[in-house]
Amino acid sequence: MRVLLSILLIASATMANAQSMNTLNLMPVPKSLAVENGRFQLTAGFAITVKSDKKDSILLKAVNRMFQTLNRRSGLYFRQEIISPEDHQDSAGMIVRVKQKAAMTIGVDESYQVRVTNKQLSLDANTTIGALRGLETILQLLSLDEAGFYFPLVTIQDAPRFVWRGLMIDVARHFIPMEVIKRNVEAMAAVRMNVLHLHLSDDQGFRVESKLYPRLQSMGSDGAFYTQAEIRELIQFAGERGILIVPEFDMPGHASSWFAGYPELATKPGAYKPGMPYKIDRSKPVSVMSVMQLIQTTPFPSFNPVKESVYNFLDRFIGEMSALFPAPYFHIGADENNGVAWKQDSAIVAFMRKNKMADTHELQAYFADRVQKLVMKYGKKTIGWEEVFSKNLSRDVVVQVWSPMSPPSLAQQIAAHGNPMILSKGFYLDLFMPASIHYKTEFPSDGFLGGEAAQWTEIADAENIETRIWPRAAAIAERFWSPKSVVDVTDMYRRLFIISGQLNESGLMHEANYNRMVSRFAAGYNDHAARTLMDVLTPVKGYKRLFGLMAQPEAVSYPTAPLVRAADIARIDPQVKWAFRNNVSEYVHSKSAGSERAIRDQLVIWSANDKLLEPLFKSSALAREITEHSKNLSALSKACLEALDMMQAGKKPDAQWLTGKKQLLESAKGTYGEVELSVLPELSSLITGQWSELPESYPVF
Amino acid sequence: MRVLLSILLIASATMANAQSMNTLNLMPVPKSLAVENGRFQLTAGFAITVKSDKKDSILLKAVNRMFQTLNRRSGLYFRQEIISPEDHQDSAGMIVRVKQKAAMTIGVDESYQVRVTNKQLSLDANTTIGALRGLETILQLLSLDEAGFYFPLVTIQDAPRFVWRGLMIDVARHFIPMEVIKRNVEAMAAVRMNVLHLHLSDDQGFRVESKLYPRLQSMGSDGAFYTQAEIRELIQFAGERGILIVPEFDMPGHASSWFAGYPELATKPGAYKPGMPYKIDRSKPVSVMSVMQLIQTTPFPSFNPVKESVYNFLDRFIGEMSALFPAPYFHIGADENNGVAWKQDSAIVAFMRKNKMADTHELQAYFADRVQKLVMKYGKKTIGWEEVFSKNLSRDVVVQVWSPMSPPSLAQQIAAHGNPMILSKGFYLDLFMPASIHYKTEFPSDGFLGGEAAQWTEIADAENIETRIWPRAAAIAERFWSPKSVVDVTDMYRRLFIISGQLNESGLMHEANYNRMVSRFAAGYNDHAARTLMDVLTPVKGYKRLFGLMAQPEAVSYPTAPLVRAADIARIDPQVKWAFRNNVSEYVHSKSAGSERAIRDQLVIWSANDKLLEPLFKSSALAREITEHSKNLSALSKACLEALDMMQAGKKPDAQWLTGKKQLLESAKGTYGEVELSVLPELSSLITGQWSELPESYPVF
Repeated sequence: MRVLLSILLIASATMANAQSMNTLNLMPVPKSLAVENGRFQLTAGFAITVKSDKKDSILLKAVNRMFQTLNRRSGLYFRQEIISPEDHQDSAGMIVRVKQKAAMTIGVDESYQVRVTNKQLSLDANTTIGALRGLETILQLLSLDEAGFYFPLVTIQDAPRFVWRGLMIDVARHFIPMEVIKRNVEAMAAVRMNVLHLHLSDDQGFRVESKLYPRLQSMGSDGAFYTQAEIRELIQFAGERGILIVPEFDMPGHASSWFAGYPELATKPGAYKPGMPYKIDRSKPVSVMSVMQLIQTTPFPSFNPVKESVYNFLDRFIGEMSALFPAPYFHIGADENNGVAWKQDSAIVAFMRKNKMADTHELQAYFADRVQKLVMKYGKKTIGWEEVFSKNLSRDVVVQVWSPMSPPSLAQQIAAHGNPMILSKGFYLDLFMPASIHYKTEFPSDGFLGGEAAQWTEIADAENIETRIWPRAAAIAERFWSPKSVVDVTDMYRRLFIISGQLNESGLMHEANYNRMVSRFAAGYNDHAARTLMDVLTPVKGYKRLFGLMAQPEAVSYPTAPLVRAADIARIDPQVKWAFRNNVSEYVHSKSAGSERAIRDQLVIWSANDKLLEPLFKSSALAREITEHSKNLSALSKACLEALDMMQAGKKPDAQWLTGKKQLLESAKGTYGEVELSVLPELSSLITGQWSELPESYPVF
Repeated sequence: MRVLLSILLIASATMANAQSMNTLNLMPVPKSLAVENGRFQLTAGFAITVKSDKKDSILLKAVNRMFQTLNRRSGLYFRQEIISPEDHQDSAGMIVRVKQKAAMTIGVDESYQVRVTNKQLSLDANTTIGALRGLETILQLLSLDEAGFYFPLVTIQDAPRFVWRGLMIDVARHFIPMEVIKRNVEAMAAVRMNVLHLHLSDDQGFRVESKLYPRLQSMGSDGAFYTQAEIRELIQFAGERGILIVPEFDMPGHASSWFAGYPELATKPGAYKPGMPYKIDRSKPVSVMSVMQLIQTTPFPSFNPVKESVYNFLDRFIGEMSALFPAPYFHIGADENNGVAWKQDSAIVAFMRKNKMADTHELQAYFADRVQKLVMKYGKKTIGWEEVFSKNLSRDVVVQVWSPMSPPSLAQQIAAHGNPMILSKGFYLDLFMPASIHYKTEFPSDGFLGGEAAQWTEIADAENIETRIWPRAAAIAERFWSPKSVVDVTDMYRRLFIISGQLNESGLMHEANYNRMVSRFAAGYNDHAARTLMDVLTPVKGYKRLFGLMAQPEAVSYPTAPLVRAADIARIDPQVKWAFRNNVSEYVHSKSAGSERAIRDQLVIWSANDKLLEPLFKSSALAREITEHSKNLSALSKACLEALDMMQAGKKPDAQWLTGKKQLLESAKGTYGEVELSVLPELSSLITGQWSELPESYPVF
């Protein structure tokens, strides 16, 4: 019976309502927070008065959205149905005061103050955008206890550390439908991010409609692209949530999809079609080194930088897109151009010689400079990935630092040169790192506008992308917003999973799609047991999966290869692992009875689980990939139960037992089906009695 | 330990792969099905050849969608990436042969043949639409066992019983976003439905853009409506799945939203605004009778039938909408017009007198006739709800039979008059009846084109509508497609929950949104225990909820009232109840050890559950509504365990025990929070040892 109860309790263990007085359930943590005893009780009479520019429709919509979310979470059926500028009761439960109507721009005043007394909530902001941030904070303050829904009494003074708090989504490799993008925008707003950077073109697809050059989308994609009407609607939707949409069109490399319809832009003559430009020799073993070499030596499709007609084309194209995307920034990519195709072209070589260019890096600088001038002509600032940096680079260009291979001093060099920067190095979500790794990433120098989390989509699609981005991006959002001194990883995880639950309630699909994918994986067999196993697996970290995928014949066809393997489903930072780790920590350090009970109950479930999955493993090839993990989880759980029994009996494990279990632990470290067992450090702690710290970092390659 | 295992097993108990040889996992059941021993094995080499009109893009897209679904479910990474008309290998794993390219129309040949041998699948159809139906059947044939994914060897000859197999969704009371509509279209296609009837206007909202009369949507809605571009996209999306979109604009009653922008159309002068037109006196108790009386005596907003300017307006409007919606049918509503407003207008009364109209029914017939002629002018056939029927009604008008209060002979009368009919009586999904009730509904006469399941949305919204429609609509789809002789309710439920799982895997949100709503309901407390309870609750049947809602002040504001109560979340026909019922049936009839074990395990979970929910009940007012059900479920489960123990010990329960438990059963029949405990008949069987048949019907009022 105890086992049964614990199973039922475990599900919500980490959602416990215990709050820290220093951070409550807020994410990101505000600049300054003071908490007093007492509460503001939420009742059906709750009403809001807005004091602002009456034409501030963004503010009014946001206040109404917040009001509806409160209504939905509490089920209170508020008597005030809709908040209009005419509601002007000073005694209302909440007062919103905004000095100045403003749209989202980089550098707009995003500060706000929230004060909760037992009579009233007040939100004060200098601008609309500050108020939007404050409304999200108020939603996160909503609490529930035996006396019902309430707000704790707080005084919050808040403002972001950085003005640029972005998320980049690659919609080129796998197309990401508009409703998924919108759900991401809503989640971003909840954690006070403010820039959605869309990587709109790459070798595999051109994803936005050009009316001037319609073959870009018609021949450069499989039919999946955003129409201009959809883009305009997204920009409005995001703008209403205080989020800027920044477009990226990657050039001169990563550009096959442009050339499908317009081969005359390319260095080498056509025909081109969208797709992965790698040709991997699969008759030999594929390694990190061989892929690296390929990347350095393949003449990738790239723009021809010496043809004036190319710049004429880009002039008109950038003009069209600058009008479509009102943001004052325009990202031109400029990454990973190895110059091989250029070196093979005699006209380009002659041009370089004539212009005394020492290498293709100088030619790339020339290309970037030409494009940057076109962007400037349309009143925009250029952004480029770090390869855009060169000694003569205009100081107007924003440089996005990203590569794990570039020297740590790069940021200082760029700062010294005077270019503003955005940091993505350390925030690549597609490297499958736990949130803590991103959270611990500090900015390497001054000169940063802020940072961007980045989700590339070679191995993410419409169904699993939310499980890849969230909730980890919320920890990164905190790094970008909160003071540098906010670094408590344990408290971050406590709040992260609470926020994750709220994002689920608000409509984000990271939980729902995980469950859907696990159900498909279970194929009509034991869904629950499949979930129990999947809940503690995590994809292999770094670029191993991507490089592994490149070695498979089916990898060539990104858009059609089904992302249905365990490695596509398993969470990157599983909540079950952290809940278990917390219990093991408590047990190892204090031997508390509560932690031992929780651990034992979890171990009983895991030790029984492998048996339950046998019929699935017998039938499904997809499931069979992770058989070893299932066996190891069950066997190690049994070993841990034995260890706990011995501990309880005051017995020491004999050397032979310990050696056997250590061997088991060692062999369980293997990667099967490109996933790993995430709870090995904790199982190891229980077997050896030694607390296992987690690594401070993991290799990227 | 046994308890633990059973918890984990229960989750997938009803998804067991046992198939019936008569129906396999097919829903709807085909006209003729022969199964042989053997299999066609699905491998990565699986490829498809399509032999048809090369320009049949609907067919080709459908074949590719099916191919991708097979790929996704099996994870096989098929070597043939995309199926094009150029693939012409006769030895391909599957051959699709279609004689004639065709778009969906009512009466198009929807027949098809599927033959699976151990070498090849073949699908033959006279038309594209028949092929679409066959592709869905093939997907449902996909099976998995220890030798992997395969198709059983079958010969299927199939054609629908009825040409009209519809689903009506009311998008007026609560706006239903386009992505939700599209998901419904995909689910409809999976069960071979072919008409989506959109109820686009009602008192509470006008939900489609008119360019001629833009105040219809701008003043007649809260801003939530479909643009014409979205409608066109939906029509194409649905057309590609063999589904016709039939628009309804309800008139002369149910029309407040028209009058918000165009009050001159109404019988009484403005101002109007969209919303519920009832004014319920809440100082007195509200009953079914009092609401009925209100419906009969309120002068509801209605079109003025004697103004020529009204018909001029409708002429232009119907012209615009007829062009937007290419379907050859146009639904004009014509329901529930009580004529009270008309009787209060002297000009109308004079018109009736002058034209010798005996009552407002004749005036409504006049109005309908005028509108029908306008519809005909634009080349369309009129559809109206049954109130459109009158003695001089044009035989071109299709009559939709719906009302639980109209005489059973109505259909015969209409048939005798010669009008085609659509049956919705018996298929109202918003009455919260189990699927079996709809499934057992037979057509009352000849003369039916088919039927329509109907989902009104006074108390359904974007979040819960899929949980309301699905999977029950699949049972109705079978009634419309399969031979009349297919009536096995037990086998229907077996297949229904398999199909439901497939719909979940394909992206329908009926499972995901249920989980999301339960999580919100659990409010950070024990999610799992909340789900265990919610899984056996079901909303009170019939119109009780709707009438109850009308009695609440907050009900006036449909669009903003949060649908977050247990009654908004609980499933209408819970799978857990049917799984439990099957076990109880087996136990009562055969006393098998397997069934007893499964029952005991479920009872142990239920008996422990109430305790786990105590903290939630203490805090959440929404949860507190269902406290009694929780207590009763746990108490009755304990009683059942006692009964099983006595039975095992060969003891008879003493009279006092039995009396006490029967009292408990009786009191557990209560409705709390507008939900009921669905497993009472089964718990009763275990306590009394008597098998409890379910009612053949439930009262609607």
